[in-house]
Amino acid sequence: MTVADLARRFVIELPAWVADELTDVPDVLPTHEDRMALVHRLAARNFVEGNGGPFAAIVVERETGRIVSVGVNVVLASGVSAAHAEVVALGTAQARVGTWDLGGTGVPPHELVVNWRPCVQCYGATLWSGVTSLVVAGSGPELEEITSFDEGPMVADWAEQFEARGISVLDGVLREQAIAVFRDYAAHAAAGNALVYNARGSA
Amino acid sequence: MTVADLARRFVIELPAWVADELTDVPDVLPTHEDRMALVHRLAARNFVEGNGGPFAAIVVERETGRIVSVGVNVVLASGVSAAHAEVVALGTAQARVGTWDLGGTGVPPHELVVNWRPCVQCYGATLWSGVTSLVVAGSGPELEEITSFDEGPMVADWAEQFEARGISVLDGVLREQAIAVFRDYAAHAAAGNALVYNARGSA
Repeated sequence: MTVADLARRFVIELPAWVADELTDVPDVLPTHEDRMALVHRLAARNFVEGNGGPFAAIVVERETGRIVSVGVNVVLASGVSAAHAEVVALGTAQARVGTWDLGGTGVPPHELVVNWRPCVQCYGATLWSGVTSLVVAGSGPELEEITSFDEGPMVADWAEQFEARGISVLDGVLREQAIAVFRDYAAHAAAGNALVYNARGSA
Repeated sequence: MTVADLARRFVIELPAWVADELTDVPDVLPTHEDRMALVHRLAARNFVEGNGGPFAAIVVERETGRIVSVGVNVVLASGVSAAHAEVVALGTAQARVGTWDLGGTGVPPHELVVNWRPCVQCYGATLWSGVTSLVVAGSGPELEEITSFDEGPMVADWAEQFEARGISVLDGVLREQAIAVFRDYAAHAAAGNALVYNARGSA
């Protein structure tokens, strides 16, 4: 066969509206609440725009809060099922920093901020990215209960496993606001306006 | 801030040598052994070329074995830590088929063939891809023991969890050949020729 019969590449890209959403955002977000507020804002707009689920993530330099990348779930927009918010934020951060290892020598420590505990795919993507801290708004069953997304089978000691690999976990930042976004999404989906993409036969 | 300060996209691309490697491969690989033999061949070349680890994957139409995509680990070549062989094969398959759901209506059933049990990230990536079968050469601790790659924390009932979501698992196809590739990689790395990219502080 010839490689011309196959797709040789795929591209993961931020939606155009993200540019507008960033115009009034400062370059630096000093507190965890500042960082999470931006994540919630991007997540709340993303599903309305029809790009993917109600999920967003950003990567910042951990100490200063300088924004390194932003990501939203673009499964629908990109046609690639792996294009969850964390994968988009981590990949574009790595593209900008110029290395697959955001924790490498000579690179400042990086933090991933997400609006809920990552699904099992993004759990792994976070582990391998080089970030040294993860901040989430929550980690309980509420995401699956409210949105009906399947997050996949996770080990019970997921947070300890992060810590064992040098990645600190901070849970509970602007938690109620995350749940409010999920409820808005659920109402949007119940009205027939959104697609819950998922594995075959999942709940 | 302005989005121009950020990377707006990243690209995951097959290495150029894959074109040469496919010239004598038929369009259709009827047996699981045929499919896995191609995976092993791509994995064995990938680390020597310096693109990433000794891992490859292909997506085929399950019933016929028609090749839909090929993938190799391009973490080093792409600068993106998520660019494992499974993510590359699934993403390029979705780019070719034109949907994020390889198990969607009107799409023939798809199978992912990989040279070992996916790491925790690619476990999730496989779950969300729409493939309805997974074929691996092996699933035991040998990969980590021989290569020193960290595969991440996996649930004990990982295969049952695939089956519960409509994804069948076939384990043990050309197992010894997979281990031979990992041993070749370990010797290559021991000679100072390869980089084991991994999470901070992992074993």
